[in-house]
Amino acid sequence: MLRLYDFLPSGNGYKVRLLLSHLGVRFELVERDILRGETRTPEFLAINPNGRIPVLRLEDGRHLAESDAILFYLADGTRFLPAERFARAEVLQWMFFEQYSHEPYIAVVRAWLHVFGTTVDPGQLRERRERGHQALGVMERHLTGRAWFVADRYTIADIALYAYTHVADEGGFNLAGFPAVRAWIGRVRRQPGHVAITA
Amino acid sequence: MLRLYDFLPSGNGYKVRLLLSHLGVRFELVERDILRGETRTPEFLAINPNGRIPVLRLEDGRHLAESDAILFYLADGTRFLPAERFARAEVLQWMFFEQYSHEPYIAVVRAWLHVFGTTVDPGQLRERRERGHQALGVMERHLTGRAWFVADRYTIADIALYAYTHVADEGGFNLAGFPAVRAWIGRVRRQPGHVAITA
Repeated sequence: MLRLYDFLPSGNGYKVRLLLSHLGVRFELVERDILRGETRTPEFLAINPNGRIPVLRLEDGRHLAESDAILFYLADGTRFLPAERFARAEVLQWMFFEQYSHEPYIAVVRAWLHVFGTTVDPGQLRERRERGHQALGVMERHLTGRAWFVADRYTIADIALYAYTHVADEGGFNLAGFPAVRAWIGRVRRQPGHVAITA
Repeated sequence: MLRLYDFLPSGNGYKVRLLLSHLGVRFELVERDILRGETRTPEFLAINPNGRIPVLRLEDGRHLAESDAILFYLADGTRFLPAERFARAEVLQWMFFEQYSHEPYIAVVRAWLHVFGTTVDPGQLRERRERGHQALGVMERHLTGRAWFVADRYTIADIALYAYTHVADEGGFNLAGFPAVRAWIGRVRRQPGHVAITA
């Protein structure tokens, strides 16, 4: 059986749980509390030297890290990842956008305020909020007149971007000014097999 | 002919130029000076709403953004990207590592000090340097006893990580403590078709 090393409040972990639910694949969930340093132990660093969840363990014992790489692996050959070369690259384009231009702002602010309860420097908070809103603006522009990010259907690009966008309010981001993003969140929620982030 | 929108000091752009050189593919280079805001004009935002280089324009007029998505697209079907499903996911794992845990530290500090000449807050510089050294440590551990990141051969995972690692000294990173990384840099340099970052 697949094993997923995860921390339930993590949107990066949630991406994988959501796709596995859509695929109807059973898996063993092994929780690692990042607040207690459980991803920085020698045992965990042996399976991911970068010390982060999620990590997927295959039945043959191999491990794969990085949420969006795990999505790509699991979705390969399913309806959640197009087979056509350019469409696959577009899926990756949006997943790299998510990790570089979205997650460091929207997810990190949510982690500070909602998960860790960190005392945050106001200047840093303002800057991250501004960059997060820029990312939401890029999404709003793309989704205006489109139902999904790539190939006119629900793919892992949507799953990757949904994970932290739908809980952006927990970091104080207001989605009122992003109607296309809000409508897309509703469409994602209505997909068969949908599960909540900490269901 | 392929067209690449690029800014020559960018390691993200260099990744694409390096792969195109290995592949022997001719392309039109269109420079956009990010220091002058040339990637934030309405014309540029129409081809990449995220306002960043590199962007690849295909012969049919479609555009693709995000350096590592472009690498994946161009390498698909070539010896620079394995065909096997798990190995492809491992290539992606290292490319997502590069964009999330390496580039924001090693590339950003280099950009501050070497490209933009930004006045930098000492606390921010210290923190980014520390995180950059952590990323180099993850690479060192992985490369100890291995020639390449994935599949025992030179792939786009190596190209993605080489781009900013080989100029890390321009951001004040000292590679003396990372002998496996330095040996790997030498191997990358000796690949047929290698070109320098601003050749």
